[in-house]
Amino acid sequence: MRINRLTQENELDINNQEQNKGKLTHFNEAGEAHMVDVHAKDDTYRVAKACGTIKVNDAVYKAVSTGTAKKGDVLAVARIAGIMGAKNNSMLIPLCHAIAMTKCDVEFELDEKNSSITAICTTACVGKTGVEMEAMTGVSVALLTIYDMCKALDRGMEIGQIHLLEKSGGKSGHYVAVHN
Amino acid sequence: MRINRLTQENELDINNQEQNKGKLTHFNEAGEAHMVDVHAKDDTYRVAKACGTIKVNDAVYKAVSTGTAKKGDVLAVARIAGIMGAKNNSMLIPLCHAIAMTKCDVEFELDEKNSSITAICTTACVGKTGVEMEAMTGVSVALLTIYDMCKALDRGMEIGQIHLLEKSGGKSGHYVAVHN
Amino acid sequence: MRINRLTQENELDINNQEQNKGKLTHFNEAGEAHMVDVHAKDDTYRVAKACGTIKVNDAVYKAVSTGTAKKGDVLAVARIAGIMGAKNNSMLIPLCHAIAMTKCDVEFELDEKNSSITAICTTACVGKTGVEMEAMTGVSVALLTIYDMCKALDRGMEIGQIHLLEKSGGKSGHYVAVHN
Amino acid sequence: MRINRLTQENELDINNQEQNKGKLTHFNEAGEAHMVDVHAKDDTYRVAKACGTIKVNDAVYKAVSTGTAKKGDVLAVARIAGIMGAKNNSMLIPLCHAIAMTKCDVEFELDEKNSSITAICTTACVGKTGVEMEAMTGVSVALLTIYDMCKALDRGMEIGQIHLLEKSGGKSGHYVAVHN
Amino acid sequence: MRINRLTQENELDINNQEQNKGKLTHFNEAGEAHMVDVHAKDDTYRVAKACGTIKVNDAVYKAVSTGTAKKGDVLAVARIAGIMGAKNNSMLIPLCHAIAMTKCDVEFELDEKNSSITAICTTACVGKTGVEMEAMTGVSVALLTIYDMCKALDRGMEIGQIHLLEKSGGKSGHYVAVHN
Amino acid sequence: MRINRLTQENELDINNQEQNKGKLTHFNEAGEAHMVDVHAKDDTYRVAKACGTIKVNDAVYKAVSTGTAKKGDVLAVARIAGIMGAKNNSMLIPLCHAIAMTKCDVEFELDEKNSSITAICTTACVGKTGVEMEAMTGVSVALLTIYDMCKALDRGMEIGQIHLLEKSGGKSGHYVAVHN
Repeated sequence: MRINRLTQENELDINNQEQNKGKLTHFNEAGEAHMVDVHAKDDTYRVAKACGTIKVNDAVYKAVSTGTAKKGDVLAVARIAGIMGAKNNSMLIPLCHAIAMTKCDVEFELDEKNSSITAICTTACVGKTGVEMEAMTGVSVALLTIYDMCKALDRGMEIGQIHLLEKSGGKSGHYVAVHN
Repeated sequence: MRINRLTQENELDINNQEQNKGKLTHFNEAGEAHMVDVHAKDDTYRVAKACGTIKVNDAVYKAVSTGTAKKGDVLAVARIAGIMGAKNNSMLIPLCHAIAMTKCDVEFELDEKNSSITAICTTACVGKTGVEMEAMTGVSVALLTIYDMCKALDRGMEIGQIHLLEKSGGKSGHYVAVHN
Repeated sequence: MRINRLTQENELDINNQEQNKGKLTHFNEAGEAHMVDVHAKDDTYRVAKACGTIKVNDAVYKAVSTGTAKKGDVLAVARIAGIMGAKNNSMLIPLCHAIAMTKCDVEFELDEKNSSITAICTTACVGKTGVEMEAMTGVSVALLTIYDMCKALDRGMEIGQIHLLEKSGGKSGHYVAVHN
Repeated sequence: MRINRLTQENELDINNQEQNKGKLTHFNEAGEAHMVDVHAKDDTYRVAKACGTIKVNDAVYKAVSTGTAKKGDVLAVARIAGIMGAKNNSMLIPLCHAIAMTKCDVEFELDEKNSSITAICTTACVGKTGVEMEAMTGVSVALLTIYDMCKALDRGMEIGQIHLLEKSGGKSGHYVAVHN
Repeated sequence: MRINRLTQENELDINNQEQNKGKLTHFNEAGEAHMVDVHAKDDTYRVAKACGTIKVNDAVYKAVSTGTAKKGDVLAVARIAGIMGAKNNSMLIPLCHAIAMTKCDVEFELDEKNSSITAICTTACVGKTGVEMEAMTGVSVALLTIYDMCKALDRGMEIGQIHLLEKSGGKSGHYVAVHN
Repeated sequence: MRINRLTQENELDINNQEQNKGKLTHFNEAGEAHMVDVHAKDDTYRVAKACGTIKVNDAVYKAVSTGTAKKGDVLAVARIAGIMGAKNNSMLIPLCHAIAMTKCDVEFELDEKNSSITAICTTACVGKTGVEMEAMTGVSVALLTIYDMCKALDRGMEIGQIHLLEKSGGKSGHYVAVHN
């Protein structure tokens, strides 16, 4: 019973994907988690961009913003951590496919008025599935690294507003966040 | 010049740590990032608790809240991802020490009114440094996993309010978040 | 002597692969382990399915089979572990190529008569080499996770019958296990 | 509600552990998976030994048994894979604690009559929880590596009889397998 | 400001790459580290070969050279470590792309006169970027493993002369080291 | 035969370690690689320091030395890579024990006359075995990262002189390199 069904099953998979619109694709009909079958999708160029913000106290803001110009560069460390985090995405998020990213950038925007730092991660690939999660994970790890490096000055920092800004490529089309 | 200075350096390290109050401890005098020396700290019992929230649309909220009772259990997957993420913390955050956690829990609270899900991660160890970052990373990975599993229903989900709720053990004493 | 031989060597590699039929392909002529050269193989759709069984005592069988319906769902955790284990395959098995799986499923069959649980892992890719080892590793990690979660109730559980059920795609053709 | 409960909770944890005898300790009262709290356990010397067997055809048996004496040493590769697999255990099995093993051995026994190879993995630590899973994972990865290296000669190999032979140290005492 | 710029940015990226000749490509115009965008590069067959040497004392040389024929085979372990190290390259080197190697060999040359061992690592892929770093990392990890296994006999071993021997494939053409 | 021998074996292990002076401790009597048993060793404070040098051309030297003051900071990235590499040591070097480092520093010395950059990695722990390999791996990964980031300007860079400068703690006493 367990064999000789490979071809048939795969046809069912693709049909199911069509029917799955509006359902959680990471679960099969029996409600069991699985890694979605993407083999029949085209290899297309896909790009994603996500961002998130950490709110910090004055001491942290001063230390971080000064460091970018001189020594003690928190953001340089957080940038590397974010890029490596994005590369580790499929090891962290259980049902993500391993994807060979062709690009990964992490940028930061300092907002003195709100005493906050925003991380923006842009990822790209040529593949069968997108790189949104890589961008979201890159942002998260970059912000967690800022928290770690500054927690001696402020344990009350808060990480928030992590969301997808934009994505393109693939069947689901071009997505642009409304609440940017 | 490069050798025979091990003992002397370590004494300086400890003195520097005293002087470093109010500075970013993850950088040395030259502004270079390093993993802080903790060898002289006591092995004490340390506990930390962090939380964070993902705001979702109605379709996601319904799918997640129904799943916990029946099939397609998003939160069961996110819980495992969060625990494994906490265990991976020192591989993700560049200057974190590897710590042998003695405990890791991830709980979720569903808030129908606000259409949101809160993840709470509690970690503990008996060691020379704390497990706040493990708790923060556990929360982040759990929420990213919810995002991943539900993104077919809502790409506009936003992860936020990730902060430390409480920590105890170690020299810096008992911390309780004000903005809980 | 060590350079200028890249082209020539690769031709030899391919010739050797033809001659290596019936030999251990993971060793070169000198008996040294290596990762087999697959660059000249076609990118084809490849599927594999493996299974394995854990024999448990009554207490474990009851706990696992009850959990799938209600709370304490051992198999949900084991499924995630199996999928992540399959993704980690090339980091565990020294001479395996890293492969971008396009699909990974782990299913379980409960056998009350024999007080056993069977894990079945199906993997797929579009690539130059197959995903049998991913399926075998997925099964193994899923069953080890069941062992871990239930060992307080039964240390005598035995994992066995781990074998390849079927594979298709690639030069070696469609394989179906005889002893299913 | 989410804070100020760290001390109280931990007392409950320990009480629950007493009451949990006969239950699946990897789930809390709500049926949610968690990493069991072991902070209150003593650091004791703990040893574990597990084994498992792969059944192979004549061509594989001959290749493996010849290789141990001459070139193409399958078992040398499998031994290293097993030891590294044991070290990776807590990254593979979701609810395992990270443990600093103080010892890891992988041995093999060749059985010509049954055309099989048995892997035996012995692990030890000085810690708050045991190393059974490290030994079980070490055996599994070693046998999977033999499968991988020999699969060109025999796709029908079967891995089985993976079980704990013995463990000592810790509260649950000395366990010796009956079905050795 | 953070969105709707994906297409435009990518065109700029490619233009920048042209202009970046003679600059450090791993930094953008603002001096921030990033993973270089390679999506527009062709998938070509790329090969690389690197080597390095460890100088050892007589006791180590004897132990290693004897072991290759008989028991205690240091080089067999170092070879596996080198291959696995090459596979881990993108997890170690922050700005390297993850690449699916199609081949990885590690060979050793023993030089009795100079009491040294040379490791040579050959890597290949079909992809958008090369595998030099995989070869360099494979050599480094192989030599570090020799150091580890022999350090009880000689703590003064020195690892050196790690360099790229040759690389082919990709826009930058065929490179052959002068100082071989 | 496979069980009930745990106590006896461990006594033999310790006796063997005494007798193994002058032998390769990473192999047992049968010549099989294993992770050395260290459970009976004391937890002592152990420190290690290693260094290594990369020789670069003028273009690289200028880019790196300028970057430390202004933008495009190669050494900041290499430092983080070195620290994370040191933390990954036990995953890379097959027979190394996992060790909880209490400290890890990576420093660089620029030598304009010789157009070279030296990386120095200092590691420490309180444990049963030393952290020399962590320091050696930290140096290697830091230098490989410099190679990666600068290879567009110079493919002929050579990494060398990687050796242990000093180590203290543990039975084997204080070691200071002669050829500093």
